[in-house]
Amino acid sequence: MLSRNIETFLGCDADYQAAATVLYGAPFDSTTSFRPGARFGSRAMRQESYGLETYSPYQGRDLTDYAVFDSGDLELPFGDTEAALAQIRERAATILKDGKRPFLLGGEHLVTLGAVQAVVKVYPDLHILHFDAHADLRDDYLGAKLSHASVIRRCAELLGDYRVSQFGIRSGDKAEFHWGENHVHTRLFDFTGLSHTLDIFADKPVYLTVDLDVLDPAYFPGTGTPEAGGVTFLELLDAIFLVLSQTNVVACDLVELAPTLDPTGVSTATACKLLREMLIALG
Amino acid sequence: MLSRNIETFLGCDADYQAAATVLYGAPFDSTTSFRPGARFGSRAMRQESYGLETYSPYQGRDLTDYAVFDSGDLELPFGDTEAALAQIRERAATILKDGKRPFLLGGEHLVTLGAVQAVVKVYPDLHILHFDAHADLRDDYLGAKLSHASVIRRCAELLGDYRVSQFGIRSGDKAEFHWGENHVHTRLFDFTGLSHTLDIFADKPVYLTVDLDVLDPAYFPGTGTPEAGGVTFLELLDAIFLVLSQTNVVACDLVELAPTLDPTGVSTATACKLLREMLIALG
Amino acid sequence: MLSRNIETFLGCDADYQAAATVLYGAPFDSTTSFRPGARFGSRAMRQESYGLETYSPYQGRDLTDYAVFDSGDLELPFGDTEAALAQIRERAATILKDGKRPFLLGGEHLVTLGAVQAVVKVYPDLHILHFDAHADLRDDYLGAKLSHASVIRRCAELLGDYRVSQFGIRSGDKAEFHWGENHVHTRLFDFTGLSHTLDIFADKPVYLTVDLDVLDPAYFPGTGTPEAGGVTFLELLDAIFLVLSQTNVVACDLVELAPTLDPTGVSTATACKLLREMLIALG
Amino acid sequence: MLSRNIETFLGCDADYQAAATVLYGAPFDSTTSFRPGARFGSRAMRQESYGLETYSPYQGRDLTDYAVFDSGDLELPFGDTEAALAQIRERAATILKDGKRPFLLGGEHLVTLGAVQAVVKVYPDLHILHFDAHADLRDDYLGAKLSHASVIRRCAELLGDYRVSQFGIRSGDKAEFHWGENHVHTRLFDFTGLSHTLDIFADKPVYLTVDLDVLDPAYFPGTGTPEAGGVTFLELLDAIFLVLSQTNVVACDLVELAPTLDPTGVSTATACKLLREMLIALG
Amino acid sequence: MLSRNIETFLGCDADYQAAATVLYGAPFDSTTSFRPGARFGSRAMRQESYGLETYSPYQGRDLTDYAVFDSGDLELPFGDTEAALAQIRERAATILKDGKRPFLLGGEHLVTLGAVQAVVKVYPDLHILHFDAHADLRDDYLGAKLSHASVIRRCAELLGDYRVSQFGIRSGDKAEFHWGENHVHTRLFDFTGLSHTLDIFADKPVYLTVDLDVLDPAYFPGTGTPEAGGVTFLELLDAIFLVLSQTNVVACDLVELAPTLDPTGVSTATACKLLREMLIALG
Amino acid sequence: MLSRNIETFLGCDADYQAAATVLYGAPFDSTTSFRPGARFGSRAMRQESYGLETYSPYQGRDLTDYAVFDSGDLELPFGDTEAALAQIRERAATILKDGKRPFLLGGEHLVTLGAVQAVVKVYPDLHILHFDAHADLRDDYLGAKLSHASVIRRCAELLGDYRVSQFGIRSGDKAEFHWGENHVHTRLFDFTGLSHTLDIFADKPVYLTVDLDVLDPAYFPGTGTPEAGGVTFLELLDAIFLVLSQTNVVACDLVELAPTLDPTGVSTATACKLLREMLIALG
Repeated sequence: MLSRNIETFLGCDADYQAAATVLYGAPFDSTTSFRPGARFGSRAMRQESYGLETYSPYQGRDLTDYAVFDSGDLELPFGDTEAALAQIRERAATILKDGKRPFLLGGEHLVTLGAVQAVVKVYPDLHILHFDAHADLRDDYLGAKLSHASVIRRCAELLGDYRVSQFGIRSGDKAEFHWGENHVHTRLFDFTGLSHTLDIFADKPVYLTVDLDVLDPAYFPGTGTPEAGGVTFLELLDAIFLVLSQTNVVACDLVELAPTLDPTGVSTATACKLLREMLIALG
Repeated sequence: MLSRNIETFLGCDADYQAAATVLYGAPFDSTTSFRPGARFGSRAMRQESYGLETYSPYQGRDLTDYAVFDSGDLELPFGDTEAALAQIRERAATILKDGKRPFLLGGEHLVTLGAVQAVVKVYPDLHILHFDAHADLRDDYLGAKLSHASVIRRCAELLGDYRVSQFGIRSGDKAEFHWGENHVHTRLFDFTGLSHTLDIFADKPVYLTVDLDVLDPAYFPGTGTPEAGGVTFLELLDAIFLVLSQTNVVACDLVELAPTLDPTGVSTATACKLLREMLIALG
Repeated sequence: MLSRNIETFLGCDADYQAAATVLYGAPFDSTTSFRPGARFGSRAMRQESYGLETYSPYQGRDLTDYAVFDSGDLELPFGDTEAALAQIRERAATILKDGKRPFLLGGEHLVTLGAVQAVVKVYPDLHILHFDAHADLRDDYLGAKLSHASVIRRCAELLGDYRVSQFGIRSGDKAEFHWGENHVHTRLFDFTGLSHTLDIFADKPVYLTVDLDVLDPAYFPGTGTPEAGGVTFLELLDAIFLVLSQTNVVACDLVELAPTLDPTGVSTATACKLLREMLIALG
Repeated sequence: MLSRNIETFLGCDADYQAAATVLYGAPFDSTTSFRPGARFGSRAMRQESYGLETYSPYQGRDLTDYAVFDSGDLELPFGDTEAALAQIRERAATILKDGKRPFLLGGEHLVTLGAVQAVVKVYPDLHILHFDAHADLRDDYLGAKLSHASVIRRCAELLGDYRVSQFGIRSGDKAEFHWGENHVHTRLFDFTGLSHTLDIFADKPVYLTVDLDVLDPAYFPGTGTPEAGGVTFLELLDAIFLVLSQTNVVACDLVELAPTLDPTGVSTATACKLLREMLIALG
Repeated sequence: MLSRNIETFLGCDADYQAAATVLYGAPFDSTTSFRPGARFGSRAMRQESYGLETYSPYQGRDLTDYAVFDSGDLELPFGDTEAALAQIRERAATILKDGKRPFLLGGEHLVTLGAVQAVVKVYPDLHILHFDAHADLRDDYLGAKLSHASVIRRCAELLGDYRVSQFGIRSGDKAEFHWGENHVHTRLFDFTGLSHTLDIFADKPVYLTVDLDVLDPAYFPGTGTPEAGGVTFLELLDAIFLVLSQTNVVACDLVELAPTLDPTGVSTATACKLLREMLIALG
Repeated sequence: MLSRNIETFLGCDADYQAAATVLYGAPFDSTTSFRPGARFGSRAMRQESYGLETYSPYQGRDLTDYAVFDSGDLELPFGDTEAALAQIRERAATILKDGKRPFLLGGEHLVTLGAVQAVVKVYPDLHILHFDAHADLRDDYLGAKLSHASVIRRCAELLGDYRVSQFGIRSGDKAEFHWGENHVHTRLFDFTGLSHTLDIFADKPVYLTVDLDVLDPAYFPGTGTPEAGGVTFLELLDAIFLVLSQTNVVACDLVELAPTLDPTGVSTATACKLLREMLIALG
């Protein structure tokens, strides 16, 4: 008897019960103001991952030795931001309730808010590590409080002052940076100071949110708002290894891949490789 | 002294006071469920129109002989559908109040609702002519009442039963067609029966809404949800000429050009040509 | 408990036992001599089908009322043509053995040979209806007997003289047409004479093979070897309806969608729509 | 001993002495005002022609039975329009002097002027058949007399009144059509009236210039200024067959393929097919 | 009353009278020999700049605090190089006459010549800083003296020996480098020696011309002739900051963005960011 | 008398007799499992090389001072891997027999096997230097022994243990690396240790095979399986210069350019530049 067509991210075919980490996708980009397309990110990663090996020469380990479950994409209503966030929150809560680590694949950056809302209920002392080109600290964007450009501000308001540390930032308006000075830790341009931050975060539950546009557009053009002057792939990989080896990451995400904006396919392949490395490093 | 850079649709540089028709763009596609990009439609038409002549060999008349004003694009908040519709409504109301005909450039089809809300206040007996591949008669889409897939249902509810006549329809779910039977006039596939409808509409104020995907994708691939089996460019042009010559079109729109989905540029050029012809035919 | 990510063609989620028709994909294009990419066809149709409705206004019926099972794609070795055909043959044989109709999604046209080899064992009196721009009647292509350009000749040799009727043909070398005159029925350019052929085939088991490049490239640019001068979408749809209503189609295929060659996505959407209509018409 | 890499248009490998027709390419588009790229046309046709058969099922004849020589592309200075035209003129003159028929591959439409200048010296009674979407009858374009938008006017001035008959025209400014009325024969939109014109031209030496944008953009998107509302591929093919069978075409051209504007490759393939048919029909 | 659609580069909406710097675009690429498209550069920068913030975290300053006027694009005749240069020269002269700094947006590199011709009349002791991958020192290109490949030679001839210093050069023919040795200062590959040059130029009026292909194609693929082995975005940004802080830049330009050659949009976004930084640094 | 259209790689127009190095192209990618397109590599390099200068500022020498012959592309049967390799082997053998150095342009990496089979017959002590992102050491790929993913294993088996040294490797499955430990020298990620290897290879005949995906995808996106984390263009150029100056390279290749996967054209331009530098450095 033939079986149905199952499509998971490369090697993420553990039984749900056995899985320590659970992938879930949020194909949403309704608040994207410049160039949409992040909605296709999670799906593209799943589809294109078969071009990758499960073995990591960076870590000398193989993804198939770890138990990851891919729960697929949520079916989110475009244009109804509140409803979409509620569904993300609910999925994250279910995964957490089952004792597993939720790993969110975007979608635009706003999806992080839904996940953080769920995680902070389980881990009230949650801290956020934020890798991004953009500060995402606006109070609103053209009047909308729920926006990709406001998501980290909303998270910071939810968690409290100085619970968020952001790295790689190289874009924002004056008011964002001003607000940030009194509420979050912001490091411009690269990962300078990351070790110091990790010392402080060492005994805290950490949410790691990686906006892929922290990468220089040379390495990652397939994103809605590319910002020249970013970090290299290897710099990001090292920073992620550092975080995952020295802190307790209880949940994480990888967002803002907009695959159709990069017709070479390199951005999707790069996102897949980062996800493989993160899943292996998470153990 | 040098002047600022003004960019209008081809030949639409009348003084506002003198203008009979006023263009306004609604760069919005937040509820698009399949492939976004209609947000870039109005801007692309403005930019690419310089590849066109102002003279129409179809009508033997020249656009420069008519007074059209291009008021540019609204700045709409992505992800906040209510707020976006309110801005569209307000712009249409202003144009109507000044005694001019509002001509809306999409954006996704939902923007029509904002315009119709304004027009029906001025013309309570408003009727709608709807050219489209899709019925757009859903009650909601994944829970959202304000959706590109529900827009004509919302309009029909606003105006009353059988005030909407739709042509070219070749996609919808079973429930849409069922609802439609009792509330609107639906003609499948092409413009058969249009003359008859125009006789009925002859003395009514008419809102003409043209979803460009009524065209076969061979003629117009640059749209979010292309549907094989549509009408040709010349069939659409003839239908539009028929409408504009035989009814009292008090407002209209041209929506669902998603220029980046057609890298050949043909879809944008075709939309520009239709707009030129409509503006000349409107007089 | 969360479920795995299952991806089937739109609405093809019947239980295997209940299914009358079974889809299977053959992502293979190793013999394609001009432009590869048909390997991505079946997968693209599955992924993009969610942009389509399950309801057909052409037939007034809904795909969800029929039991179709999507068994996913075979994992075929590129560059080893014999081995790939063996796998296709085996999958088709399994489906037939279970009393179901196999529906193959290409891939390049050579995949048809694997299916026909399996079907003719069950239906020795098998006849083939072949819609294509190309005759595919070469004895070999640069020495290779197993080639997309030879596939119908191989089928004709397997079934016997005049068991194949081909329509829409508008390309081939002189020798192909010469050979064809004595072994198959060839109708150039369009579907003229189809009714007559269907009368003859009425009581025969029929394999319907649709090479999508029978469509004019205006309607279907996303294929390896586009040939100007083809049929329209509606002409092909009508021809397919005629075949499926008047003959006993025991197996069929839809091949040569090369989705990446059409960045507008129209070709994939069109192939999906044809597949929906074929599945409904098959019952 | 190995031979050099020779690249000719499909099957055009006759000895120069034996050849009746000689291809020459003019990779020039410096005066293109809207979207450049026609400079790549001749080269793309040569390269992509290997996807085509030499046999024509339309004519039942094979290109390899005719002697055509491909002399490659001229090396033209961009930005120096006079110099470029001089080189084209010289190449055409050489071919004519050797008693052969020159067949020019564009390039933008202005290249036709260079060829016509050479041909009219040999055939003072030359008449021009012009298939195009655009009238190309401007006196100048932004001050430039030598422009793709003026080329037919320049030709008409060179030959004298009513020596040019143009078909398929659907774009131009008011002044062009006005001038045209007194100097050329213009038929709008399609080939209506072609037979009548051919009767008149029957005993004249004819230059046939085919601007590929006479085709509807559905069939031919890969051109600088696509104009909706054109003829189909088969209509153009029939018109060309009519011309070549009923008049004495002493020289001809095929211009305005801009291959990079059509990423599907269909436009190039279509141009190649037309060229094959024209070369066979020319005999 | 509604206002016209004005489109300026991000934040460049000062009154003309108040402006210290004036942008002007030269959409010209007629002499481009390899891949055209630079004609679309200035327009694309204006359009895409709305994806950028006005605030620079590199300089800690905001573009809105400076008075820049965007005078839009010139309307240049393609194919008539002399006429195009004359218009550029005239616009630059007007801006200079009004006591403002002209900032030219290309277009291909030849446009620089028009600007330099105007500037040297006002500043006879003008020196040029030239950042580029190509030496641009040919005497002619296929016979044309006015060519993108000759532009710096023409400038050097106009200003006198050793008035031009070029950096980042990694392409040219043997004769160019030979000529260059006796007439300009050429530094290969990167910005080594820039500080030394700036010491020498400290008290001179400087024209800074930035051909964006000085960037490595990894950072800037959207240009007509990409040359591997270039500088990074941050290296270019630092070099520009150095120049603008240590010399008296009386006019400048940014040329050779060909936006359609980079479908990811990264090149346009990068050019916009450089322009923002240059405008802020110019004060 | 006009001459035929000859198309060679830039400046490679020596007489065959005089040539020291002979280019030959293998347009083959039938075993490519992920994304095909390498078949277009050699042809694209030939076509696009005219955008390059013949002079190298890196080496201060000009390609026109060296005698290289371009013998064009083989005509290989797609889908028949054995037959294709036989043709490549034969062409290499012919070039070697004539006392010249064969330089193979891919095509996918499997083509290297055909060349190595010919070269090892002439140079039994042959050693291979292998620059690549992928180990290519699989025993088979989905059952196929002749695969792009097995090519270096097949070469290593042919030559004997430790005759292959590979650099830049950053992808492979666990079994490949395990096998590799006992049969080849593998250096991960970059060129560390290259000097040491060259000392050992100094007096050996060397085959240099450059899979262009050894480059980081930022520098070279146009390849079937891009792998983030690679070397820069200048690092690769330096490594190649080192190899060519310190060892006796008797044959070499440049493979895996898939030009259509990089619509910016940068990958093709970069491959051309590498080829120019290699040809000059080979002398």
